[in-house]
Formats: sequence, structure tokens, C-alpha cells
Amino acid sequence: MTVKIHDTPDVQNFLRAVAGCDQQGGNERAKQILHRLLSDVYRLIDDFDISPEEFWSAVGLLNELGKESQFGLLAPGLGFDHYLDMRMDAADEQAGLSGGTPRTIEGPLYVAGAPEVEGFARLDDGSDPDGEVMWLTGQVHDVNGQPIPSAKVEIWHCNSKGNYSFFDPSQSDYNLRRTIIADAEGRYRARSIIPSGYGVPAGSPTDQVLKLLGRHGQRPAHIHFFVSAPGHRHLTTQINLAGDEYTWDDFAFATREELVVDATRIEDAAEAAKRGLEAPFTEVVFDVELAPTTDPEQQSRHKRPRALEDEAMAKRDSARA
Amino acid sequence: MTVKIHDTPDVQNFLRAVAGCDQQGGNERAKQILHRLLSDVYRLIDDFDISPEEFWSAVGLLNELGKESQFGLLAPGLGFDHYLDMRMDAADEQAGLSGGTPRTIEGPLYVAGAPEVEGFARLDDGSDPDGEVMWLTGQVHDVNGQPIPSAKVEIWHCNSKGNYSFFDPSQSDYNLRRTIIADAEGRYRARSIIPSGYGVPAGSPTDQVLKLLGRHGQRPAHIHFFVSAPGHRHLTTQINLAGDEYTWDDFAFATREELVVDATRIEDAAEAAKRGLEAPFTEVVFDVELAPTTDPEQQSRHKRPRALEDEAMAKRDSARA
Repeated sequence: MTVKIHDTPDVQNFLRAVAGCDQQGGNERAKQILHRLLSDVYRLIDDFDISPEEFWSAVGLLNELGKESQFGLLAPGLGFDHYLDMRMDAADEQAGLSGGTPRTIEGPLYVAGAPEVEGFARLDDGSDPDGEVMWLTGQVHDVNGQPIPSAKVEIWHCNSKGNYSFFDPSQSDYNLRRTIIADAEGRYRARSIIPSGYGVPAGSPTDQVLKLLGRHGQRPAHIHFFVSAPGHRHLTTQINLAGDEYTWDDFAFATREELVVDATRIEDAAEAAKRGLEAPFTEVVFDVELAPTTDPEQQSRHKRPRALEDEAMAKRDSARA
Repeated sequence: MTVKIHDTPDVQNFLRAVAGCDQQGGNERAKQILHRLLSDVYRLIDDFDISPEEFWSAVGLLNELGKESQFGLLAPGLGFDHYLDMRMDAADEQAGLSGGTPRTIEGPLYVAGAPEVEGFARLDDGSDPDGEVMWLTGQVHDVNGQPIPSAKVEIWHCNSKGNYSFFDPSQSDYNLRRTIIADAEGRYRARSIIPSGYGVPAGSPTDQVLKLLGRHGQRPAHIHFFVSAPGHRHLTTQINLAGDEYTWDDFAFATREELVVDATRIEDAAEAAKRGLEAPFTEVVFDVELAPTTDPEQQSRHKRPRALEDEAMAKRDSARA
């Protein structure tokens, strides 16, 4: 039996009480947002005749998601990260802002405080027996093609099993995570290993939600970047290595055509020696264009809860003191 | 700057992809519900121009709520439990079902597997120095006033500090939790202590949400009941002890006029002796009327994740084997 009570005065008054609309204290914007969100969900419960069993099963799933800190993993799976990007792209377009390498989602697996080095970094600790050597380079330049000296390039990616250091305690600290300060020509160079694709943990609450939707939790092989420099807009982006079966079927909806980059296998010993490597290895080149801005807020990344953000900053400050 | 992109074909197509509408597998109802919920939230993000910072701060709060298993505590605070009751009341009315003590919300603090006794139980373990003796009795009867012999009366409530056993590990197992099988006249009798009001843990994620809304997290002193008997509708309810400052200001919106019950202080030694007590004590009488049903589903409580449900059932089964 279906009952529809959402539009009754009783429910409308109740919603106002729940959202604290008649209370003096609190945050006015939070009240308005919660009032709208609760109205939407109350109406959904009516329209779909949600049973108590269904409701409590959803509550149980929410608890499980939080217990494993997976709301930041489910969010891209439900398209929120990409939707926020679409909104920022639309706002840029509306403001007449153009140029620069496209943004794409950050994901939940960044860890603050990685070692900072100049020009070149080796990202992997050499312990991954299946890791194929990757030579990753690029130049950071402005919208006129001029190099940006000392641009800050933060890179993080997973290992050959699809796991990230810190979240995978079997890896060494900051394995596959470095901050490279580009050289005078804006160039950065990194030796690492080819990352594998990533999959959400099998059977995890995020996986359960995706399965309900008939979807998988796989991502193509990809490498995360934060790139920043004074006077330029902070860029949060990723590259995908071309040819991955999930390139255009990423559960996190992060792929953008301009960000699919060739991974070129090089077997020539002389080419390898030029880079201080042994053949074969795989070369990935990713040049980055940063758009100009005078707005200080646009020059840093968005605030969000990040692993070790607070601890790492505190540690760095105390090391500098 | 405000951008509105929700209604663009790009976003509408994206929403269908996110909700798995084009996928073969999964659960059709889940897809429809998620598609609707995500459309609502995406539109809300547009309408309120939600910033990435606001979004990620909400994600952080959701993780905290789950880490402390508080979605079942926040839910009544956001009115969901009472809204589900309102819907069930409306469905009963629409079906011409009437009679019976009113339902009200269960709350998240039931624990399955409490000791089962006949006729009388002492609920408290005697260790609460501030606990004032409560004599709680009542009769379970049908809508014609006929007693229901052997009705099952499950009672749980908090101690004089507002804490529940199991969730408060300082209390003994199943303190203030018992299942009483009513006698041949449908009567149950319990000795316990007067519960205090309940407040959500100060500073907890639930408390943070309520504070944003300018609200408190207090409940009046109350006692939870499940009452059931074959051939009758299972009743989930609570009583409030009259005179509490939060009787009509319950953060969980559980109060109903018919469920506000007098707590009568009795100082007469002879009256106390009749009940095997010493004066003074406080008497609470709560008679319960159960409505008839032939539907087996209506004879049991709703399924929801409950503390110890699985473990307790397994333990009981193995004890019986």
C-alpha cells in the first residue's frame, strides 16, 4: 500500500522543526541545505514507498561505509567528483577563463608530506618485483608556452598490484609518492614503475553499492598530479596510460581525452643509457600547461580531509623550526 | 558565481550512467532509487552552489558518523524514524486499521538476547548508587479489553547517567534489559531504577549536525518496549515519564501524548511492602493494547541491523541444542 504524506501540513511543519528553521542558533546555510535535502529524501521515501527494512538496510550500509572511511571512495563512484569538475569547468567557461591542462578528480588516496626533491625523483623503493620501469617526464609551461621554473609537481600512483602506500601498510613510507620541484626550464623527471589499474576492495561497502547498480569498481592505470606555481591556477589532475581496457569505463569517471597519454615501450639500450636506465623500460611524457591567476585562493588546492594533512604539516613545521 | 548545469543533456546522461541505468546487472529498484536520489543531490549542489570545500567537509562528517556507528542515532534526530511511523500510521488509517497502543520509534540501542523471565523481572543489577527504585507494571490486552496471556514484553532503558548497557561497557551484561513473558492475566511486573534522560554524546558527529541546526541532542526520560503475541501486531513503542523538561522537546521526536505516563512517588511503607520493596519508590503503570492481525509479517518487528542480533541468536540456538 502506498501512502503519500510528504505534502501534508503535518510533514511540512515537521520538516521545518527537524531542520531547526525555528531555532535561533546554528548555521543558517546548513539549515537551508538540510531542509532541502531532508525534503527531497522524505519525498523519495513516499514516492518509492521505501519500507522500514529498506531504510534500515541503507543506514547499516552508511555505517559500514564510514567504518572503512569509504565515503571519499564511493563519492567518485557516484559521480560527485566529476560533477564538481563539470561545475568548475562551466564556471570557468562562464567567466571566460580558458587555457591550461584540464582538471580531473583528486580521488581519496593522496597523502600529504611526501619527500620534496628538485628536478628528478625516484618514486619507487625498488621492492616491487613485478614493477616495470617507467620513465615519466614533462615540462610545466604557461599558456604562452613559456616554461615555469620551480613549478611544484606532486605525483602519486599505485604499485603493480593496484595498491597505494599508506593505505597498503606493506609498502614503505611514501612509496610512489614524491613532490618534485621542476628545474629552471620547468622540467620534471621521475623514475618509477608502471602502475596497475585500481579496483575498489572486493566485497567492500563501496563495491556493494556499485554491484547494486550493475557496475564494476575498476579504474584504468593512472597517475595523479597536483601542479602549482605562484601566479598560476593550482591544477588537480590525472593521466591515464593509453590502451587500458578501462580507459573509457572508469568507475570514477575521471578520464578526459586530453589526459590519455601514450606509454611507449623502449627496448634500445642506448636510449635507456641516456636516462641512466637499462632496457627495456616504458616512457611516459606529460607536459602541463598552467593558466594564470592573481586570485590567491585559486593558487592552492581545495580544502578537504586528507590523510596525514595535519600531522604532516605539523611535522614539517617542527622540522623547520 | 553560480552555474546551473543539472538540466543539461550532459548531466542527465551522466546521471543515467552513474545509476547504472544502461547496465544489464544489478537491482532495478536500487538503480531507480539511486538515480532519483543522485538527481536530487546534484540539483541541490547546483541550487545552493555547494563548493568543493563544503562537499568534502560533508564527506568527512559522513565518515565520522559511520566510524562511530551513529547513522542510527542521527536518523531519529533528522526525523526519519518518526517519519516512517507517520507513514505507517497513515497506511493503517487508509486500511481502516485502528486500535492498539500507538507505535513510536525504536532507537538504535536495543540489544538482542536479553534474559527471558516469566511474570516478574528485576532489570537493574543493583550497582547504580543514584538509581531510584522504579516499580513498573502493566497488563497486555486486546482491543476488546481481554488480557493476552504470555504476551512477550521486552523492556530496555538507560541508567541514572543516561547510558545503556552494552554501549556503556562499565555496566554488567544486559543491565536494564529483560524480556518478560506476561502471566495468565497478561500482566508483567518489573523492578528497576528510574532512567535519566538521554543525550547524544557531546561533540560526537551527531551532536555536530544538531548544533549546525541550532538544536540539542536531549531526550526525556523514557523506557523502550517491544510487545508481541501470536495473532497480534508487533508493537514497537516507548513511554516517557511525565514532567520531564524534554517531554515535548525530544531531539528524536518520539513523544506521543498517549505514551506520556505518570511516575508516582510512593512513600508509604505498607504500599512498598506489598511489592516487596522499601519506601520510597516510584510506580509506573503502562498497560498495552495490541491490535489483531492474521498477517505473520505484522507479528514480528521490522528487520534492521541490531546489536548482537546474529550473535545472540546463534548463542541461544547453540545453548538450546
